[in-house]
Amino acid sequence: MSGAVADLGLIGLAVMGQNLILNMADHGFTICAFNRTVSKVDHFLENEAKGKSIVGAHSTKEFVSKLKKPRRVMLLVQAGKAVDDWIELLLPLLEKGDIIIDGGNSHFPDSNRRTQYLTEKGLRFVGSGVSGGEEGARYGPSIMPGGNEEAWPYIKDIFQSISAKSSGEACCEWVGDEGAGHYVKMVHNGIEYGDMQLICEAYDIMKRGLGLSNKEIGDILSKWNTGVLDSFLIEITRDIMYYNDEDGSALVEKILDQAGQKGTGKWTAVNAFDLGMPVTLIAEAVFARCLSSIKQERSEASEKLQFVGNTQAFDGNKEQFLDNLEQALYASKIVSYAQGFMLMQEAAKEYKWKLNKPSIALMWRGGCIIRSVFLKDITSAYRNNPDLKNLLFDDFFNKAIHKAQPGWRDVVSKAVLLGIPTPAFATALSWFDGYRTKDLPANLLQAQRDYFGAHTFRIKPEAANEKYPEGKDIHVNWTGRGGNVSASTYQA
Amino acid sequence: MSGAVADLGLIGLAVMGQNLILNMADHGFTICAFNRTVSKVDHFLENEAKGKSIVGAHSTKEFVSKLKKPRRVMLLVQAGKAVDDWIELLLPLLEKGDIIIDGGNSHFPDSNRRTQYLTEKGLRFVGSGVSGGEEGARYGPSIMPGGNEEAWPYIKDIFQSISAKSSGEACCEWVGDEGAGHYVKMVHNGIEYGDMQLICEAYDIMKRGLGLSNKEIGDILSKWNTGVLDSFLIEITRDIMYYNDEDGSALVEKILDQAGQKGTGKWTAVNAFDLGMPVTLIAEAVFARCLSSIKQERSEASEKLQFVGNTQAFDGNKEQFLDNLEQALYASKIVSYAQGFMLMQEAAKEYKWKLNKPSIALMWRGGCIIRSVFLKDITSAYRNNPDLKNLLFDDFFNKAIHKAQPGWRDVVSKAVLLGIPTPAFATALSWFDGYRTKDLPANLLQAQRDYFGAHTFRIKPEAANEKYPEGKDIHVNWTGRGGNVSASTYQA
Repeated sequence: MSGAVADLGLIGLAVMGQNLILNMADHGFTICAFNRTVSKVDHFLENEAKGKSIVGAHSTKEFVSKLKKPRRVMLLVQAGKAVDDWIELLLPLLEKGDIIIDGGNSHFPDSNRRTQYLTEKGLRFVGSGVSGGEEGARYGPSIMPGGNEEAWPYIKDIFQSISAKSSGEACCEWVGDEGAGHYVKMVHNGIEYGDMQLICEAYDIMKRGLGLSNKEIGDILSKWNTGVLDSFLIEITRDIMYYNDEDGSALVEKILDQAGQKGTGKWTAVNAFDLGMPVTLIAEAVFARCLSSIKQERSEASEKLQFVGNTQAFDGNKEQFLDNLEQALYASKIVSYAQGFMLMQEAAKEYKWKLNKPSIALMWRGGCIIRSVFLKDITSAYRNNPDLKNLLFDDFFNKAIHKAQPGWRDVVSKAVLLGIPTPAFATALSWFDGYRTKDLPANLLQAQRDYFGAHTFRIKPEAANEKYPEGKDIHVNWTGRGGNVSASTYQA
Repeated sequence: MSGAVADLGLIGLAVMGQNLILNMADHGFTICAFNRTVSKVDHFLENEAKGKSIVGAHSTKEFVSKLKKPRRVMLLVQAGKAVDDWIELLLPLLEKGDIIIDGGNSHFPDSNRRTQYLTEKGLRFVGSGVSGGEEGARYGPSIMPGGNEEAWPYIKDIFQSISAKSSGEACCEWVGDEGAGHYVKMVHNGIEYGDMQLICEAYDIMKRGLGLSNKEIGDILSKWNTGVLDSFLIEITRDIMYYNDEDGSALVEKILDQAGQKGTGKWTAVNAFDLGMPVTLIAEAVFARCLSSIKQERSEASEKLQFVGNTQAFDGNKEQFLDNLEQALYASKIVSYAQGFMLMQEAAKEYKWKLNKPSIALMWRGGCIIRSVFLKDITSAYRNNPDLKNLLFDDFFNKAIHKAQPGWRDVVSKAVLLGIPTPAFATALSWFDGYRTKDLPANLLQAQRDYFGAHTFRIKPEAANEKYPEGKDIHVNWTGRGGNVSASTYQA
């Protein structure tokens, strides 16, 4: 085959790239495959790609020559320098209006930069999150494209064809400008960290708190998977609980408890600090991985630091407690997603992106790791009211979290008394109780800051008067000593 | 006066700069004062500085000419660009061996950069944290200098003379290379965020949980201030509780609960993520300020989200509970400082600094916002064993946290049941319970990651065998479907 035959060219033939090509070919598109190590192209064409509408190239020039115009080039290479290198290699070979898509796990500021850079060159850049692992890539991933919106009409058909479907709808929609696609993918990954940590805490409570066997925990998860927690992660955790090694014992118990991470959860937490948004659950989930990773020090600590408390073992109603645990997991998950959407809302304001919230929830409904029935309800919430200020203000979730509260409180308080760590459950509940509190103790904090640093405070509207007018920065001489001068930034 | 008469020249006559100059003059040093707006120099000389060993200058050139060699120039200007601008202005006027000290709240990477830059120019840079607010600056701050150690002999006498003293020892010691001084100041500020948040939570529990009046809370704090919690922040909080407005009611209750922040707490949290250290308490304290700042949304939430639980009001023994609360605050504080020292330890490793842990604790013992009896015990712990791996492994703190545990658990569990948010208390306890756990549920997390992403896992040493050797990355085909290929980073 020769000539401009391919609907899209894909560079990077690792497992994700190969599987995306096969997926596209299955949906009737002709794809040109290319790879830095060219021998991989031939191997792919002779094996997995054989008999499919897939062509290959042995040079960048040949690769570009095989693409229909406007050319669509998708990169599935390592995030970072490799993406920039490929862009520079491709630039002299491409023409105005051609499209470069980065489908890797890039950090959103890089995608901001690349969108601007390629727009200046007359090209269109798309930074697209792709989630679902190798199986997702092959049979239907969640795809979150953002960047230069002019590119969308030219890639929409391909992307929505290959993406996962949920109730017949494609789990792929245009996310927003510049790095918005990779941003939403980043938050998705952060939420994934949170979901996984919540399940780990539930497992720990069932195992160490209730003394259940892996089989019993698997059975509970089977049950949960038919209810509000129905999701891919609950399903695979059930499988993991049932998966026995050759000696008949659960393999999971032999796995070293040192969690790895690739950094996207951390990016989300750091971004939350940058935007001043309290995304506490994801942050705790990342920290929980960090704590797990210092295993040797923990082993030492486990000998030096013993549990001291009045409750040695669980002695309540197990059935009831397991129902409460389901509610605690559900409520914590609602808080985590509420925090995630608050963060994205703030990001849209800060970075001046238009973000489509119902579409984001829809994209996460299928194909990706956090896919769940839960996201269907979130989609509904934002479709019912696209301007919904907070997920907790939606009727459905509002009712759900009110219903879950007593069980949630029971689980967190019992875990505390039993000495089982629940950083994610606990922070979700603290956040919820803080969020629904009109008057937090930050009044004292402001008094302290004014006392020691003359940082000033403001008065509550209901307490404002002539002496303390509303909206003014007020300093009080708390001690009778020192000056009445309020702190200013240092000026030289 | 003319000629090179001054021991040190200080640029920046805002309140901190003025007070440091007056402090230095009180200790027998001759100081040359300078300011961008020169009229401020004259005003200062004619007023606060009158009759003291303080001279002024009306130009940078005159300023430099009045300094003894090697010249010591201290900047107390706004962190950021102003520091670089002053360095550039001074550079052509200074000679090899002269010293520039930045006493502002600079971010440590800037101090790393400036140390390197000035070393290349043959000058010596010192980035020094100064804590204690205006009163500290005037009568004895905590000073944390780092940078080019060659400068230390030339500034040691001045700095240790003017610094706070604790049991006769100066709260100023050389911290370490490059930005180490500003780094330690940053962690100090992070810990300050944590301490303040913990006190706010205790106040909230006493106010809303126990229904105590401000006077009663003040009395409790008075009592605490004679025990293990004896500290500046408890003392001023007591004062704040007793401080009544003209109408006879406590002023603090009229203060708007929207906390401000200057970013150093956030820097600490972000650095913790960068270094992969679970510094959870400071992170929660920063997030608590963020949550407080969205007051309007909280007001709305307070109407839409009600407390639901089985415990409507506290009905236990108040005296006992207040003792427990003191223990909860104490234990959480121990965890916070343990986390802070873990972070500094990791930073020293990562940035290749020599950090002197006993000195750091000593520097924080007096002069600064977090000064306390507590820090005396930390100083002892690190003096007894400079290689102490963790503060919790020290005998004193080990005993203390074991003793505090039951009360701590009681307080956190009751707060959860009463619906009072305790993000800092709760995260400290979760962290403690995680830290002392040999086998965390991260084994499940690794199984999940291997299941959906073929990320591989390792085997526990005690479960290793021929099939699952220790230290190897293992992938299992959990489903029977899909491949046995483990995920690799994308390679093009």
